[in-house]
Amino acid sequence: MTDPAADVRARALRAKVASRALRTASSATKNRALHAIAARLRASVGALREANAEDLVSARAAGLSEAMIDRLTLTDVGIQGIARAVEEIAALPDPVGSVSDLVQRPSGIVVGRMRVPLGVVGMIYESRPNVTVDAAALCLKSGNATVLRGGKEAVRSNEALLACVHGGLVDAGLPADAVVAVPPHDRETTKALLGLVGVLDVVIPRGGEGLVRFVAEHARVPVIAHFQGVCHLYVDEGGDPANASDLVVDGKSRPGVCNALECLLVHESGAAALLPALDARLAELGIEVRADERARALMPHAVPATDGDFGREFLAKILAVRVVRSLDEALDHIARFGSNHTEAIVTPSYANADRFLHEVDASCVLVNASTRFNDGGELGLGAELGIATTKLHAYGPMGLRELTTQKWIVYGHGERRGSAPRS
Amino acid sequence: MTDPAADVRARALRAKVASRALRTASSATKNRALHAIAARLRASVGALREANAEDLVSARAAGLSEAMIDRLTLTDVGIQGIARAVEEIAALPDPVGSVSDLVQRPSGIVVGRMRVPLGVVGMIYESRPNVTVDAAALCLKSGNATVLRGGKEAVRSNEALLACVHGGLVDAGLPADAVVAVPPHDRETTKALLGLVGVLDVVIPRGGEGLVRFVAEHARVPVIAHFQGVCHLYVDEGGDPANASDLVVDGKSRPGVCNALECLLVHESGAAALLPALDARLAELGIEVRADERARALMPHAVPATDGDFGREFLAKILAVRVVRSLDEALDHIARFGSNHTEAIVTPSYANADRFLHEVDASCVLVNASTRFNDGGELGLGAELGIATTKLHAYGPMGLRELTTQKWIVYGHGERRGSAPRS
Repeated sequence: MTDPAADVRARALRAKVASRALRTASSATKNRALHAIAARLRASVGALREANAEDLVSARAAGLSEAMIDRLTLTDVGIQGIARAVEEIAALPDPVGSVSDLVQRPSGIVVGRMRVPLGVVGMIYESRPNVTVDAAALCLKSGNATVLRGGKEAVRSNEALLACVHGGLVDAGLPADAVVAVPPHDRETTKALLGLVGVLDVVIPRGGEGLVRFVAEHARVPVIAHFQGVCHLYVDEGGDPANASDLVVDGKSRPGVCNALECLLVHESGAAALLPALDARLAELGIEVRADERARALMPHAVPATDGDFGREFLAKILAVRVVRSLDEALDHIARFGSNHTEAIVTPSYANADRFLHEVDASCVLVNASTRFNDGGELGLGAELGIATTKLHAYGPMGLRELTTQKWIVYGHGERRGSAPRS
Repeated sequence: MTDPAADVRARALRAKVASRALRTASSATKNRALHAIAARLRASVGALREANAEDLVSARAAGLSEAMIDRLTLTDVGIQGIARAVEEIAALPDPVGSVSDLVQRPSGIVVGRMRVPLGVVGMIYESRPNVTVDAAALCLKSGNATVLRGGKEAVRSNEALLACVHGGLVDAGLPADAVVAVPPHDRETTKALLGLVGVLDVVIPRGGEGLVRFVAEHARVPVIAHFQGVCHLYVDEGGDPANASDLVVDGKSRPGVCNALECLLVHESGAAALLPALDARLAELGIEVRADERARALMPHAVPATDGDFGREFLAKILAVRVVRSLDEALDHIARFGSNHTEAIVTPSYANADRFLHEVDASCVLVNASTRFNDGGELGLGAELGIATTKLHAYGPMGLRELTTQKWIVYGHGERRGSAPRS
């Protein structure tokens, strides 16, 4: 019996070897691989659905919830969507190799920064099989090798998807080891992966808070992640109540996502104009309101908010509401209860918009727009691997650029630091 | 007796509270504080030297080496240098608040990225007391609070320097807790600091490899660091031997620094033109050569290189030398033995220069220039906190910009993601 930790290391090392070829692969070659992967996905719908069906049978037998079964399911339309996403990634500009700011220094050397792949990216995820392909495609496009550790419940689906990825890589003359899977096994295997300093350059966990915290706790390699999306909307003095109401409803249009609105703060001067009508609207939509005393006086359907309701990510049709006396109080609330994810203000005030934008520490700060815009597609990244709130390297949606770094390059003419170059 | 770990946490939390004020401090205020700090340093030379003298007495009694005593010593000139460095930091452009790439998206929202402080920066360092002020000044300028854990042997020097920093902060109306020191105590206290997730945004260790590895091993907060500077110079086919010889000598002009040259690779076609003359020159300079068999045949003073000599950071007047058959072999050697720090090529070839720049994975890659240029001042950063090789967020010298991150900002007009905005 092979030692599982040694097996994980061996697989990751194969990806590291392959990463050298990817570092220098041309855009044309990488795009050829991406198109080949998309073609194989489209041609393999039957096989993919068969593998997925086996996973679904096991999932039902194991008593997984309908929501989880739903996340696990690959439909014909869904598979076409995965293929299309790969083609869209192929159409994105290649970030690798671009050089910014070439400047001549007093010493005579010409200095710039070149964008380069990170090297080997580890994705640790659960449930959604599409991440297998999304992650591999983004990493490939950005010149990185990928090590995938998917969810136990999606093993056969992920294997079948990976076969399309491997086929596409080889079609284009790239090494199959550019994308390596490690079996999900158990926590010990995952911990082994998280210890591969010098092999993995970064680990990105995607899944529930439990998974993300486990990864953050045990990783010795750098991690980019977000833990929670406790997103606020603050309706400032003079903020338009009709628009504010629309933004609240838009913020709950998909309650289970990380940029969903969790808490509404309202300046006391606008509470009467906003909250009663909003109360009726939310009740009609089946959204439960947990409010402080002042808000409850204006919202008949609301129940009392407990302390734990502020700073909480409900991921459900539940909204916390609080009336505040000033912008400062709203900023204090956000500083205390926010999760550095997404924060928005509705205001007519130039000065307050400016303060909010500057003072709020979150990956995305919005004036007069919905929190639901904190998304790679909406912000212009084209494709994303999730939202980062860990600040370093990536803050907000992680796209191609976040899978690269910049190294310094120097064009010299023989310069020595100690003295002038010989002519 | 206070629990040391709780004490560390309490101090770091004070810095976190202070970081909100720093986030929004104007450039003028921050510069006022920096100039006040510099003035206090210049006015306190006597007191600083007294405190330093006490540390030196203890250091000698403890039997520290002359090299360590030297690093510990604050001279009049040295103190003036620290003050001048602070004034130079004040003169740098403030990176905070700048916005790049404001773009209108199809949804109507206008999207950009704003440069913001990381928040709370932890510096863990040993020996050199000037780091106390350098780190505090760079963090202050970039709007960050600082938590300092200096070396045990410099406790009184660091306290005296910190008093100047605190005085300058308060002179400008900033909280003294913008820069907090935790006593060096022991490894347990340091470990406690390294576990402060959600309080420290990043930890930067500066010191010997032992310290850096301890920090990397135990940190649960993000770490930016370099472990080793195993820097190579590859003299390609046709590379000018006279310039190559100059670059080797320049590479060893300060053998104890991280960008010092540790290994010379020579294309076999140029070995005879370069190595014999270089051998004599290095012998004259007292630089020991550890070479492979082919190089030794041309370098009478050289001793045999053992396997451990390649990939080794000597930090001394010792150079490893190897003859290679091709650029590919040189690239393989660097990929295997390099430490992602600094790598240089001497070549007349356009194609080989291009390959080297693209293919070498290091924080600074140079063509026809000395490895000694991987330095914040030389590359144009103005001031630096050390060289990073951990790739994420910072790769190469860490300056003001590396102490910041970018958040997304959105100027909206009422947009909802679900449907068009109400007019």
